[in-house]
Amino acid sequence: MEDRGLLIKRAEEELISKAKKDGVETAWDRKAEMKTPCGFGSAGVCCRNCVMGPCRVSPVPGKGVERGICGATADVIVARNFARMCAAGSAAHSDHGRSLCLYLENASRDGQINIRDEKKLMTVAKKYSIETEGRDIYDIAHDIAAATLNEFGKPHGNLAFSKALPTKRREVWDKLGVTPRSIDKDIVSIMHSTHIGCSGDAKNLYNMAMRASLGDGWGGSYIATEISDILFKTPSPVQTEANLGVLETNQVNIILHGHEPSLSEAVVAASEDPELIALAKAQGAEGINVCGMCCTGNEITMRHGIKMAGNFLQQELAVITGAVEGLIVDVQCIMPALAKLSKSYHTKFITTSPKAHITDSLYIEFDEEHPYDSAKEMLKQSILNYKNRDREKVLIPNEKCEAMVGFSTEAIVNSLDTVVNSQIGPMQTVKPLADVIVSGTIRGAAAIVGCNNPKNPHDTCHVDMMKYLIAHDVIIIVTGCAAHAAAKAGLMLPEAKELAGPGLKTVCNLLGIPPVLHQGSCVDISRNLQLAGELANHLGVDISDLPVVGAAPEWMSEKAVAIGTYVVGSGIDAWLGVVPPVTGSPFAVDYLLNKMEEDYGAKFYVETDPIKAAEQMVQRIEAKRKKINI
Amino acid sequence: MEDRGLLIKRAEEELISKAKKDGVETAWDRKAEMKTPCGFGSAGVCCRNCVMGPCRVSPVPGKGVERGICGATADVIVARNFARMCAAGSAAHSDHGRSLCLYLENASRDGQINIRDEKKLMTVAKKYSIETEGRDIYDIAHDIAAATLNEFGKPHGNLAFSKALPTKRREVWDKLGVTPRSIDKDIVSIMHSTHIGCSGDAKNLYNMAMRASLGDGWGGSYIATEISDILFKTPSPVQTEANLGVLETNQVNIILHGHEPSLSEAVVAASEDPELIALAKAQGAEGINVCGMCCTGNEITMRHGIKMAGNFLQQELAVITGAVEGLIVDVQCIMPALAKLSKSYHTKFITTSPKAHITDSLYIEFDEEHPYDSAKEMLKQSILNYKNRDREKVLIPNEKCEAMVGFSTEAIVNSLDTVVNSQIGPMQTVKPLADVIVSGTIRGAAAIVGCNNPKNPHDTCHVDMMKYLIAHDVIIIVTGCAAHAAAKAGLMLPEAKELAGPGLKTVCNLLGIPPVLHQGSCVDISRNLQLAGELANHLGVDISDLPVVGAAPEWMSEKAVAIGTYVVGSGIDAWLGVVPPVTGSPFAVDYLLNKMEEDYGAKFYVETDPIKAAEQMVQRIEAKRKKINI
Repeated sequence: MEDRGLLIKRAEEELISKAKKDGVETAWDRKAEMKTPCGFGSAGVCCRNCVMGPCRVSPVPGKGVERGICGATADVIVARNFARMCAAGSAAHSDHGRSLCLYLENASRDGQINIRDEKKLMTVAKKYSIETEGRDIYDIAHDIAAATLNEFGKPHGNLAFSKALPTKRREVWDKLGVTPRSIDKDIVSIMHSTHIGCSGDAKNLYNMAMRASLGDGWGGSYIATEISDILFKTPSPVQTEANLGVLETNQVNIILHGHEPSLSEAVVAASEDPELIALAKAQGAEGINVCGMCCTGNEITMRHGIKMAGNFLQQELAVITGAVEGLIVDVQCIMPALAKLSKSYHTKFITTSPKAHITDSLYIEFDEEHPYDSAKEMLKQSILNYKNRDREKVLIPNEKCEAMVGFSTEAIVNSLDTVVNSQIGPMQTVKPLADVIVSGTIRGAAAIVGCNNPKNPHDTCHVDMMKYLIAHDVIIIVTGCAAHAAAKAGLMLPEAKELAGPGLKTVCNLLGIPPVLHQGSCVDISRNLQLAGELANHLGVDISDLPVVGAAPEWMSEKAVAIGTYVVGSGIDAWLGVVPPVTGSPFAVDYLLNKMEEDYGAKFYVETDPIKAAEQMVQRIEAKRKKINI
Repeated sequence: MEDRGLLIKRAEEELISKAKKDGVETAWDRKAEMKTPCGFGSAGVCCRNCVMGPCRVSPVPGKGVERGICGATADVIVARNFARMCAAGSAAHSDHGRSLCLYLENASRDGQINIRDEKKLMTVAKKYSIETEGRDIYDIAHDIAAATLNEFGKPHGNLAFSKALPTKRREVWDKLGVTPRSIDKDIVSIMHSTHIGCSGDAKNLYNMAMRASLGDGWGGSYIATEISDILFKTPSPVQTEANLGVLETNQVNIILHGHEPSLSEAVVAASEDPELIALAKAQGAEGINVCGMCCTGNEITMRHGIKMAGNFLQQELAVITGAVEGLIVDVQCIMPALAKLSKSYHTKFITTSPKAHITDSLYIEFDEEHPYDSAKEMLKQSILNYKNRDREKVLIPNEKCEAMVGFSTEAIVNSLDTVVNSQIGPMQTVKPLADVIVSGTIRGAAAIVGCNNPKNPHDTCHVDMMKYLIAHDVIIIVTGCAAHAAAKAGLMLPEAKELAGPGLKTVCNLLGIPPVLHQGSCVDISRNLQLAGELANHLGVDISDLPVVGAAPEWMSEKAVAIGTYVVGSGIDAWLGVVPPVTGSPFAVDYLLNKMEEDYGAKFYVETDPIKAAEQMVQRIEAKRKKINI
């Protein structure tokens, strides 16, 4: 198999050279310009939570200033900062979920927002104890919208959890007092308790961080996935292509970037509008080429096979190709740098969300009551921009790779079920998956998730880790920017089974699946939780007993901190490939990397070398197997 | 009149000397040890919102690094940090409000939580359109609890506003899109939009900061005040004493410190329990002396005349007296330093809130269903500690000052109404107050609020500003730590009228009130809003037309940032005596100190010299008078 890792780099290098020639900067340039990052901030011991400071205590215990002006120690300062990262990350994911609940409220049979997955609708209705018998699906949908919105603000009780959550896990949370209450309240609680003069106990703060993060994973993100599936259908395997080579020389290129699938689904639908296609042709283009970037890219490729233009660190490179007419974005992970950058090219940088205005962009608010009309307007603006493309300045890298995507939990269960149980009829359970794990054909599973970070070589950490793991018969589930990395590297091709160990290869052969399964966007890590929970329930164990691990080898966002936290809280060890800003606190280091296991049966590992991390992951998988005697 | 300013300093100096002798440190020592604060942090241009950084851009435009790795400019970074300060501040106040709503739910005729103000109950019920006719007050109370809790999490619509909010002001907000929706959602929205790659537009971020802050002032804080009045009665004028001299040599000294009146009311009630008094006497004490500190001090002095032990920077000094048996705290502004400090004395440092654990404190959780029992336990622990007091180590400063406190908006209206309209019978409106302002007898009103900050000389900025303003016939309303400063300085004595200008002196004489009126704790700035709103409504103008100003001369907390923001958003200019971390952003400086007036008819002023600030305030008051021709 060709080394696709090289191709990734080749595509980037070409465009980075072009950037230099064009006199524009990228995140890598800004990273270099920033020089050494602040040591206090990097260690987490910088506090700006009141204006008696800013304070910075010594990142080395017993040396230098030990307390902030209020008396907060490094342990308290680091814990407060960590908790706020979880609050922000949980807020981002969950607010995305909330948007979808509100969008579902607008769904109607005759309107522009429809239900595309009745089966999922019924499943979700059951979770919230909503009557379905003999009712119109839109009435059910509106009840689901009301029930899920209630999860954000209800004043009493706890979240409504999926039945995938094992009872044993819930007991762990109840004992520690970290069972999420309502999504918003648990986030707001952190902001309160990290205010000057509130919580001055690190453990208390990590517990609060956990509660809000679990409210993200099993609440806000989970809801986002559920509602997206109801509205836009539960993904199933589909072919696509990945990398910037998916841009077309003679078509209007549209890149959809951000997170919430409501916008991107509407744009995808509108891009097939004959009126717009005619408009594109009238501008001299052969058609409209809609591609997706980052998590929005994951959402629309999972459901429609829309091509994946790239991940976080490629957003600027896309503009630098000179071939993008419209870069349409909503929320999260959109570099504000795109505003200035797009002025150096012809790209229309279209912002659409009241939650994420960006100075010097073209703002066309996404109309959530008339999404199709709204999407048409965005596309029209982009299509009319085709004439401004300067062909002298165009460089579309010749690199792209085919991929098979769309492995929702339901799709994974179906794939295995259909083949393995062909003789006894479909069971629609995780039994076949559990069987191949218990038998040792597959040693375990790893969820590789998260961002890109210019601190690490782009995509390399993702890809190197994945290759090691599949070679050791560990099946991989990917979401977010990690998914793009895998796709570009060819790891989502069925042929990638050649890189797998003998057991995993057998399974891939049998099912015709790649060894790396694409589960979606970052909110879709809820799918990982669901799958792990169902496996644990099937085996009668807790999630922490499973030979399942998680990793974010190139993480950078506060969402990733919340994810890592709820993954560990759910009982899955999480490997971080970038050092989190906690090293200044002895308590944090000991708790996160060690004692957390006593609480949750899982903990964090920090390892910047992806191969070393992968070795540890395999060891941990084997240890877990041994523990449950499989 | 004796210069009380000197007395304040004398009390502190004595105890600071004692601290040195005792080998313990205070916030001033830690401030000195911290040396020069980080210039990037102070200018607001440090960003830790993702781990590509931390990034720090140049605080001087056009010089050095201009963008973070994501491309965020100084304008965006400062705005994100500012918005997060507002989010945290709003969260703190509002979560305090939420606690009281939950407490009201537990109220019952026969239980430990009762309704003490039926009139306020009826007023608040009306606001939320709750039926009162022929209903049991506890049923009404529970409906109010449900209605107010709903303000935190309702998925649709806007907050339920007091009728004190002028229609014109609401129109200003609607036009700008900053009308609060629900309290928690607006806070969470900020955390989402300040996540990497969301809002990259400073104005958008200030609007979001405003929306959440208005949700604090007119929502969370307003609710906190409403429910506190219902449960513990609306304050009316009462005598008290202030400063650390209120501690007693031969009694068990209890200091209540923090914010939520539920805890402190229960402790005050329990301190009169014969069983506990007998226990105190059995320990050799003459009795139990409960004193209040910071905002908790304000809450209980307003309603019971409980003595005010001091404000934020005196919390450590209280312990250093060596005469405090129990320091019972709940949430906010409690220095974590108290844990270590109290180990050097005999003081039991008792934390009580699951929202604010502090390492090395004695944790006795406040039982919100059995508050009296819970308070008794805390007191018992403190009383039994009396025997451990080391009389050799005791130094109670001989400084205290009488004060008249308890001027809720209702009390102010009543005071004026009773005297001025004695011939036509009480009107229970703000007309008499409006009349003395319109006539020019009083030139205007100033709300002086906020914290202490070791960056400024303790209390001096508050007191100097107040003295200047009253001398210029500006009546003063105080809350928070500013209220303690005024009380200690003797400005809440009716005799302080001698320091007032002739008009204000006449009014003080007539009503027997001091020139500085104590309105309560920091959440009680809602009382300022109510009073200003009712005045504006009476005069048929917007709040921004009134000759009313606000100032926080020694602010330090994120709550203060939220307060300043909602005060300006409500149409009242706000003077800050400590430079906020925004100076690195040209947009911030121009918007907050200038253009904000175009949006709200009010803006921020930053002036560290309290006399200069007071001069500006008087000028602004006169300009506003001219504008509405009074």
